[in-house]
Amino acid sequence: MAVITALETADVRFPTSLALDGSDAMNPDPDYSAAYVRVRTDADDDLVGHGFVFTIGRGNDVQVAAIEALAGHLVGQEVEPLLADMGGTWRSLVHDSQLRWLGPEKGVMHMAIGAAVNALWDLKAKRAGRPLWQLLAALSPEEIVDLVDFRYLTDALTREEALDLLTAAEPGRAEREKQLLESGYPAYTTTPGWLGYDDAKLERLCHEAVEAGFTQIKLKVGGDLADDVRRLGIARRAVGPDIRIAVDANQRWDVGDAINWIRELTRFGLAWVEEPTSPDDVLGHAAISRAIAPVPVATGEHMANRVLAKQFLQQRALQVLQIDATRVAGVNENIAMLLLAAKFGVPVCPHAGGVGLCEAVQHLAMFDFVAVSGTIDGRMIEFVDHLHEHFTTPVVIEDGRYVAPTAPGAGTEMLAESISAHTFGG
Amino acid sequence: MAVITALETADVRFPTSLALDGSDAMNPDPDYSAAYVRVRTDADDDLVGHGFVFTIGRGNDVQVAAIEALAGHLVGQEVEPLLADMGGTWRSLVHDSQLRWLGPEKGVMHMAIGAAVNALWDLKAKRAGRPLWQLLAALSPEEIVDLVDFRYLTDALTREEALDLLTAAEPGRAEREKQLLESGYPAYTTTPGWLGYDDAKLERLCHEAVEAGFTQIKLKVGGDLADDVRRLGIARRAVGPDIRIAVDANQRWDVGDAINWIRELTRFGLAWVEEPTSPDDVLGHAAISRAIAPVPVATGEHMANRVLAKQFLQQRALQVLQIDATRVAGVNENIAMLLLAAKFGVPVCPHAGGVGLCEAVQHLAMFDFVAVSGTIDGRMIEFVDHLHEHFTTPVVIEDGRYVAPTAPGAGTEMLAESISAHTFGG
Repeated sequence: MAVITALETADVRFPTSLALDGSDAMNPDPDYSAAYVRVRTDADDDLVGHGFVFTIGRGNDVQVAAIEALAGHLVGQEVEPLLADMGGTWRSLVHDSQLRWLGPEKGVMHMAIGAAVNALWDLKAKRAGRPLWQLLAALSPEEIVDLVDFRYLTDALTREEALDLLTAAEPGRAEREKQLLESGYPAYTTTPGWLGYDDAKLERLCHEAVEAGFTQIKLKVGGDLADDVRRLGIARRAVGPDIRIAVDANQRWDVGDAINWIRELTRFGLAWVEEPTSPDDVLGHAAISRAIAPVPVATGEHMANRVLAKQFLQQRALQVLQIDATRVAGVNENIAMLLLAAKFGVPVCPHAGGVGLCEAVQHLAMFDFVAVSGTIDGRMIEFVDHLHEHFTTPVVIEDGRYVAPTAPGAGTEMLAESISAHTFGG
Repeated sequence: MAVITALETADVRFPTSLALDGSDAMNPDPDYSAAYVRVRTDADDDLVGHGFVFTIGRGNDVQVAAIEALAGHLVGQEVEPLLADMGGTWRSLVHDSQLRWLGPEKGVMHMAIGAAVNALWDLKAKRAGRPLWQLLAALSPEEIVDLVDFRYLTDALTREEALDLLTAAEPGRAEREKQLLESGYPAYTTTPGWLGYDDAKLERLCHEAVEAGFTQIKLKVGGDLADDVRRLGIARRAVGPDIRIAVDANQRWDVGDAINWIRELTRFGLAWVEEPTSPDDVLGHAAISRAIAPVPVATGEHMANRVLAKQFLQQRALQVLQIDATRVAGVNENIAMLLLAAKFGVPVCPHAGGVGLCEAVQHLAMFDFVAVSGTIDGRMIEFVDHLHEHFTTPVVIEDGRYVAPTAPGAGTEMLAESISAHTFGG
């Protein structure tokens, strides 16, 4: 029986702050980084599971240390039983009472578990010779709910309700899978909208986005109201009336400020308002949602766990749920969030960008389409054109859509030479 | 001008799991630990600021790594300006955008900032030659609100409202300070109630608690309903009808389970039900509060930050707020939580126990009495009789009350020989 021989970590950082790529109202100078892990085994297939946590620079070493703290749980374990019961594997990590104290179920330790879980999923998909989205979409409803920890969810979603949802979505799976392979999944682009870009660059990138086939762009806002009005005007003139424009405040506002500020921007036609305030503030988002309706509120990239997702949905505090591949405890917890969103009839439009987030999260959106929500209506995956060249299977965007990946794995494998070249302090 | 020369960290662990001290329904075998930091300066006073994060074992090394990640922010800084503007110092740490990504404002990185902030407060109080509670209680209302970051709070509490609260509490400060010095602050004890103790030990410790002058004890529940019923019966018979008995489920239940389980226990007369479910579940706690009223719900030891505290209070989801000295970003954020509780008229009964939590949190409760809420009605500080001997100024309990500390500092200083003797792997 093959066993796990190592969790091999790396502190990978890219100096993106030099070009102000990724600059927004709360994050003026991010250095896109990955706390990276490779799960190695002694199987003779030479397959390696890759996972990571996306961070924006300082503290990436702390995130790496948290991943290393999981070695005692995984190294020496037999590979097959771990991968055969990914629900149990998830619980064994998340429910370790001593590690749990460090969150609980949030922040550095929880994200570290996510990296390890995602690396195991990458390994499992590679062993199966399938892309993760197809591996997941081929599971039975029972196998899918076995992946999910319903603790703390049952007042909103029980295992039985989840089973019913998944069973109802079984007809048409094959057809939807074919549709994805033929025409991909809709994307929107954030590339034009970083706060650090000047007006000319904004305008040029807006034109390029439309030419590239995108039907939605997103602009960062929340630094200065006059700037936001000017930049939204430029963007709206550049893209015309038919392209959707979302705005993203990256948690910049208090509740009252958010409502007042957004009211000044609605005349430009907003597809949604993203992260208006603290990602922990369910009640605040609910108040903002009521005040700015029918403009939707979108959030999720900093949502700590499924318990927050449950409450945002219960309270109608968001109208678009933006799951993130590396914020929560990996694929399993994101499946819980997809099921919750399906229960409440809320569209999921994943957060992406950063390092490798597009590569990873596309699998979850495509799985959702085939096996959970069964629809792409009102759904799209964020796309940012950064750092894809460092991955072995970079995302492919054609005519504003993600081309469905066919390579085995979870999309999370970074090139060995990129890891070496960008290891911090290395 | 003196500068900070080092953040000296230590991974301190005590093997408490051997005696099942601290065992509860979610944490069967904690090893009480401290991710410890000493802030050293080159001042010729030789004073050192001490702080820590309480953890329960595995992962304490990750927490230490997070504290070390703050060295770049503090080492080399001039001491006086840092300590003179503790509000600004707090912001410079919490608002570092790159570190903030690792929470935001929650989990390992946020608690690390709390340890550093608390160490600076310890240093500041030692330099002033006063215990922290008296140092804080001598500040003007303006100086106190300057310590607080009102970001994300203003829909529930503005700076001006906080100023009004503090100004209204100014008369009587001297009298309340005198009262504390004369007769201390009420305590309750959790010592009898750990799940791992057998019935005879439970009964004996209940008797001892009453003899020691405590008017409230707390029992861990949530493992097995029949056991809980039996143990509560033993405890109620042992302490008689006039001693309050609180129960603590340590997040064991889902919302529906909590309501059903608690209904089986209310006949024993419950002072409060603590941590019935996930500490992130504001709406869940609100539902439980409504269902079990008039039995109060208490929570807070795992409350990630002031934004959660705000929502729990807005939603009437708790009736007792249990701040913790090392869960949030230190003294400043706990002051924000004291102000929120005062605004909503909710009593604060701090969580303590663990390693050094009693020593640290008593200062916040005493400051609250003198300068914020102005009352001890319905308030008490948790007391657990563990590991106090490792501190230079251990808490003193007389007749069921915390004796007000008079030694300079924040109570957070562990004996150098204890640190050395219990350094993990050392």
